[in-house]
Amino acid sequence: MPFIGVGLTLLLLTGGSFFVLGTYYQHNDFLHKLQQLIQEDPYAFYIRTKLYATLQLFNMNCLEQSVGAGSRMSEIMKYGFPGLDDVRVYSDFVLSYDRRNRVAHWVYEHLRAPCVKSNGSGVNRNEAVYQPDMSVPSNFRSVLTDYKNSGFDRGHLAAAGNHKCHQTHCNETFFLTNIAPQVGKGFNRDVWNNLEIYVRELTERYGSVYVCTGPLYKPKRQMPAVTEVENSSTTKGKWCVEYEVIGENTVAVPTHFFKVITVESKLPGGQPYMEAYIMPNAPISTNTNIRNFLADIREIEHIAGLQFFNGLRRSFFFGTNYTTTPEIYNNFQ
Amino acid sequence: MPFIGVGLTLLLLTGGSFFVLGTYYQHNDFLHKLQQLIQEDPYAFYIRTKLYATLQLFNMNCLEQSVGAGSRMSEIMKYGFPGLDDVRVYSDFVLSYDRRNRVAHWVYEHLRAPCVKSNGSGVNRNEAVYQPDMSVPSNFRSVLTDYKNSGFDRGHLAAAGNHKCHQTHCNETFFLTNIAPQVGKGFNRDVWNNLEIYVRELTERYGSVYVCTGPLYKPKRQMPAVTEVENSSTTKGKWCVEYEVIGENTVAVPTHFFKVITVESKLPGGQPYMEAYIMPNAPISTNTNIRNFLADIREIEHIAGLQFFNGLRRSFFFGTNYTTTPEIYNNFQ
Repeated sequence: MPFIGVGLTLLLLTGGSFFVLGTYYQHNDFLHKLQQLIQEDPYAFYIRTKLYATLQLFNMNCLEQSVGAGSRMSEIMKYGFPGLDDVRVYSDFVLSYDRRNRVAHWVYEHLRAPCVKSNGSGVNRNEAVYQPDMSVPSNFRSVLTDYKNSGFDRGHLAAAGNHKCHQTHCNETFFLTNIAPQVGKGFNRDVWNNLEIYVRELTERYGSVYVCTGPLYKPKRQMPAVTEVENSSTTKGKWCVEYEVIGENTVAVPTHFFKVITVESKLPGGQPYMEAYIMPNAPISTNTNIRNFLADIREIEHIAGLQFFNGLRRSFFFGTNYTTTPEIYNNFQ
Repeated sequence: MPFIGVGLTLLLLTGGSFFVLGTYYQHNDFLHKLQQLIQEDPYAFYIRTKLYATLQLFNMNCLEQSVGAGSRMSEIMKYGFPGLDDVRVYSDFVLSYDRRNRVAHWVYEHLRAPCVKSNGSGVNRNEAVYQPDMSVPSNFRSVLTDYKNSGFDRGHLAAAGNHKCHQTHCNETFFLTNIAPQVGKGFNRDVWNNLEIYVRELTERYGSVYVCTGPLYKPKRQMPAVTEVENSSTTKGKWCVEYEVIGENTVAVPTHFFKVITVESKLPGGQPYMEAYIMPNAPISTNTNIRNFLADIREIEHIAGLQFFNGLRRSFFFGTNYTTTPEIYNNFQ
C-alpha cells in the first residue's frame, strides 16, 4: 500500500512539473514569435505593451530592454511615434506616409557619429537614383514625372548625407516617399542644406542625435474681398490653407518644413537636449542664420497634427526654453 | 524489473501528457487574451492575422469567425480599414481622426433595419448634446466655440438618425470628432440630408448596409495671374488645394463630402452592391436628384488618400459599373 502511495505521489509530481514545463515552453515560444513580430511590424511595436500584457503569467520586467536592443526600428522610434498613418520601416529611417498629399507626414532618423562623416566609407550618393516606392499602392504613389518640369527640387526629408554607413541606407533615402517638392535656389540648396549640415555637426559632436523632419501646410489669413468687407461687420479676412499640387498624382507642395532635433547627452544619465525649426518653402537670403527659424514644438504639433515624445511634458527634456535662454545650448554636453 | 519498466513508462506517459496539457492550457489562455485585445484595439485588429500566426502550433481555422462574432468593431470594419490614422472605436461606429484638420478622415457605420426606423424606440436626438471628445489630445481637439458664429452647421458624418437602437449610440454621434463644418441651407439641411434618408431607405429594404462617410479637400485649377500668363508659355493655371479653417483650433472646412455605400444582398451567398457619392460643400438647388452626384470610388480614393475594400478588385462587388448601367440597381435584391 505505501508503495502505491509513493507511486501516485511520484506520478502527480511528474505530471505537475511537466504541466508547468509545458506552459513555460509554450510561453517562451509565443514570446519569441511575438518579439519577432514587434521588431518587424510598426503597429505591433506601437501596441507592444498591450501585447506583453497578454503574457503576464511569467515575469516580464526586462522585456522592454531586450526588444530595444533587438531592432533598428525600435531604436529609431525611441522617442515615440508622432503619428500612426501608414507607417513604413526602411533600413535606416522610419516614415509615416500621407496618402492624400503623396508626401510623408514625418520621417524619423537616428544619427550616429560614424555614419554622418564624409571620410570615404565607400558610400557614394551618385550611385543612388530617385525612384518611386513600389510598395505604395499606385493611386497614392508619387513618380518621377510628377516632379519633372514642376520647377521644384526633389528635396530629401531624411538627408542622404546622414546615412553613409551602408550604400543601401543611402539609396533608400532616394525613394520618393522620402522626397518632397522643395524650392531649389535659396531653400533646398541653401538654408535648408545649412540646417542639415548643422544636424550632422551636432551628431559628430555628441554622438547620438534623433531627427524628425516633415512638411507643414500652414494656414494664412486671406485678404478680404471688397464685397465681403462691405457686407460683414468685420474687415478681417478668413484663415485658409492653400498649397499647390504638382503632377498627375497631385503631389502636395508644402508651405513650410520642420525639423525636431533631439540630442542625447554624453554624460551618463544626462537628459537630452531638444530644438525645433520651421522654415518656409521659399527662397531665403542665403546668409540668413538658421537660428532665426527656431520654433516652438507646440506650433509644429498644432499645424502638422503630430505629437512628439508621446505627449510627455517638455520639462522632461533639458533646454526646451531655448528661445529665451540660448546659452543653454552652449552649456549642454 | 518489468515492474520498474512499467513504472517508468507510466511516468514518461504522464509527463508527456501533462506537458502537452500545459502547452495547450497556456495556448488557450494566450489565445483568449489575444482575442480580447483584438476585439478592443483597432490596431491589434488590423494586424490580427499576423498575431494569430504567432499561435500556429494548434489549428486556427475557425478563429476569424469566432472573432467576427465577438465584437461590434470587427463587424463594422468587415470591409477593411480605409486608412489607419488615429482610429477610434465608438459603440456603434468607428472613425479615423485627422489631427491636422480636426475633422475625421472617415467614419464607418454598419446600419441594420431595426435601428434606422423612426417607430418610437425611445431614442430621442433632442436629448443628445454636441460635445468635444475629451479623449482627443487638447491641441488636436475641436470644441464648440470653433463652430460658433462660423456660419457653418455642425454636420454629422455618421448621421444621428442611423443609430436609434440605444440612446448612447445616438449621443455618441454628437461628439465633435464625428462632426464637420457643413454649409447649412442647400446642403446639410437639404441635399446631404436626402442622401442620408436614401441610405436609411436602402437599410430598411435590404436589412444590412455599410456606409463610409468623410470629407474631401479637392484640388482645383487656379486662374493664372496676368503676369504669369505673360511670362509663361502655358496659359493654364496651377492646381491648388484650398480650404478655409475656422476657430481657434483651425477646424478645416472640407470642399466636398463623400459616402461609399455597400448594400448586402438578401440572397444567401449573394454579392454586395456598391455606390459612391461626392457632393460639394455648397448650396445646391434643393430639388436636385442625388443620383447626379454618383461618383467613381477611385476618384474618392485618389482625393482622400483612402483605400476601400482592402484594395480588392472592384469586380468582387456586384454593380460597380453603375454609372453606365443604372438598371443594375433595380435588379439587385
